[in-house]
Amino acid sequence: MIIDRLYARVEERSPICLGLDPSEDVYPPGFSEKFRSAAEAALRFCQEVVAATADLVACFKVQIAHFEALGVEGLRAYRDLLHELRQEGHIVIADVKRGDIASTALYYARAHLAGEFAADFLTINAYFGRDALTPFFPYLETGEHGLFVLVRTSNPSAAEVQELLVGGRPLYEHVAEKLVAWGEKYRGRCGYSLVGAVVGAHRPALYQLRSRFSSLFFLVPGYGAQGGKAEDVQPAFQEGNGAVVVAARSILGAHLGKPDPAARFSLYAREAAQAMAADLASCL
Amino acid sequence: MIIDRLYARVEERSPICLGLDPSEDVYPPGFSEKFRSAAEAALRFCQEVVAATADLVACFKVQIAHFEALGVEGLRAYRDLLHELRQEGHIVIADVKRGDIASTALYYARAHLAGEFAADFLTINAYFGRDALTPFFPYLETGEHGLFVLVRTSNPSAAEVQELLVGGRPLYEHVAEKLVAWGEKYRGRCGYSLVGAVVGAHRPALYQLRSRFSSLFFLVPGYGAQGGKAEDVQPAFQEGNGAVVVAARSILGAHLGKPDPAARFSLYAREAAQAMAADLASCL
Repeated sequence: MIIDRLYARVEERSPICLGLDPSEDVYPPGFSEKFRSAAEAALRFCQEVVAATADLVACFKVQIAHFEALGVEGLRAYRDLLHELRQEGHIVIADVKRGDIASTALYYARAHLAGEFAADFLTINAYFGRDALTPFFPYLETGEHGLFVLVRTSNPSAAEVQELLVGGRPLYEHVAEKLVAWGEKYRGRCGYSLVGAVVGAHRPALYQLRSRFSSLFFLVPGYGAQGGKAEDVQPAFQEGNGAVVVAARSILGAHLGKPDPAARFSLYAREAAQAMAADLASCL
Repeated sequence: MIIDRLYARVEERSPICLGLDPSEDVYPPGFSEKFRSAAEAALRFCQEVVAATADLVACFKVQIAHFEALGVEGLRAYRDLLHELRQEGHIVIADVKRGDIASTALYYARAHLAGEFAADFLTINAYFGRDALTPFFPYLETGEHGLFVLVRTSNPSAAEVQELLVGGRPLYEHVAEKLVAWGEKYRGRCGYSLVGAVVGAHRPALYQLRSRFSSLFFLVPGYGAQGGKAEDVQPAFQEGNGAVVVAARSILGAHLGKPDPAARFSLYAREAAQAMAADLASCL
């Protein structure tokens, strides 16, 4: 099952999930001028970072918003990137955060788990409740795909909705409880379910959720550029596994302010990934 | 402001929001075989339905999931459809239900309010809280764009998350309260805000929300094929305005089971839109 492959990658490499969020902000000077289009620059930037870091990370998370903003050609680059990553045997989380009623979710499932844009894992928004997830379940049956459902996000105003108290406990805990039930039948050999949770680098939430839900694999954003440190993500783990920690800007933009960024940005990205792996290892 | 234009369309035409969700399920027999690709069939089907109904409806809602499922060519068709609709002066709601942290939402805002895929209104998921919406606000400042934020959806398991009780009131009411505050500065001459709410054809929710929030314009799915009747959507309205009611399958697939569907599907769509307008008018 794909969750067992992800678990093994964390064992073999590191719990890093490298976020591919290409943008002018993280390109080295003069980078995008070398290409015919912004979409081509985005694709090439990601390819170079992947080549420099793939042996150090558990998986890649591709942020579709950055490609959607580049229009049809951006989505062509997104398709090509996902295809290449999976052809090369990398595990790909498509960060699409889709969520809709079942009759629409059916098309999102087709788009992102079976069609041109097929990924290994998808991020999903569960505000609609269970029936919005049911169209994804047939793809889970094959064992080849998994979901990460938004539980407690890493942004400053996450608490505004997600920590509203329901029966004395924050909303996000109720969402997590549901996920555990929905994902129970999709447990891999490693003990974790194909239905995982997005939980930000927020110590109290991670601690609370991990202590209650041992079968939930966590996708943890918020480390690095968003301010989270290794000790903030530490409670996500059980015996050094059970979570991947997202870093995007802190690796993609590691060259910012360093000497000779244009020629060496992928080297800086590799060094940043190594430093992050060491930082996480020191806490686990 | 775009909300004033939408208000005027409801006055002049009807409160119908025609949902463009193209799929094999609603094409007449032999339709898709006439085209080189599924994407081209989707575009042409929508164009024909639009031509047959545009004078009867307030706006069109385009469901991006149906185009995403067709890959890059599907998104090219989506782009072309949105562009054509707006060129012809129609009001377009892009049903994308995006939602992410601010640094990502920025790219979704660019993609769907400014880029190739620019629409008049977007549907948005507010599970992230306020900061996920802030990147959309600069586009609202122009008065040319608006949002419909998910409050109480129309699917069977909506209650599972959205009706969890927070301080004795359902979660969706708290979300609606926040929207009203966020949208207060974007009120049009008609009294309604550019920040509207998606509220399904669920009588108690509509009644409750309408009685508390007079400035919220509602986008109401769930009528027709999803089971909602005119009396279910009636509480959404104030003096016959303040809401648009979505119908997709009941209009797009009006030809199903009727004589000569291949030649007459757009005529059946028109008749279904006329019948729906009359049905709604009888209740308002």
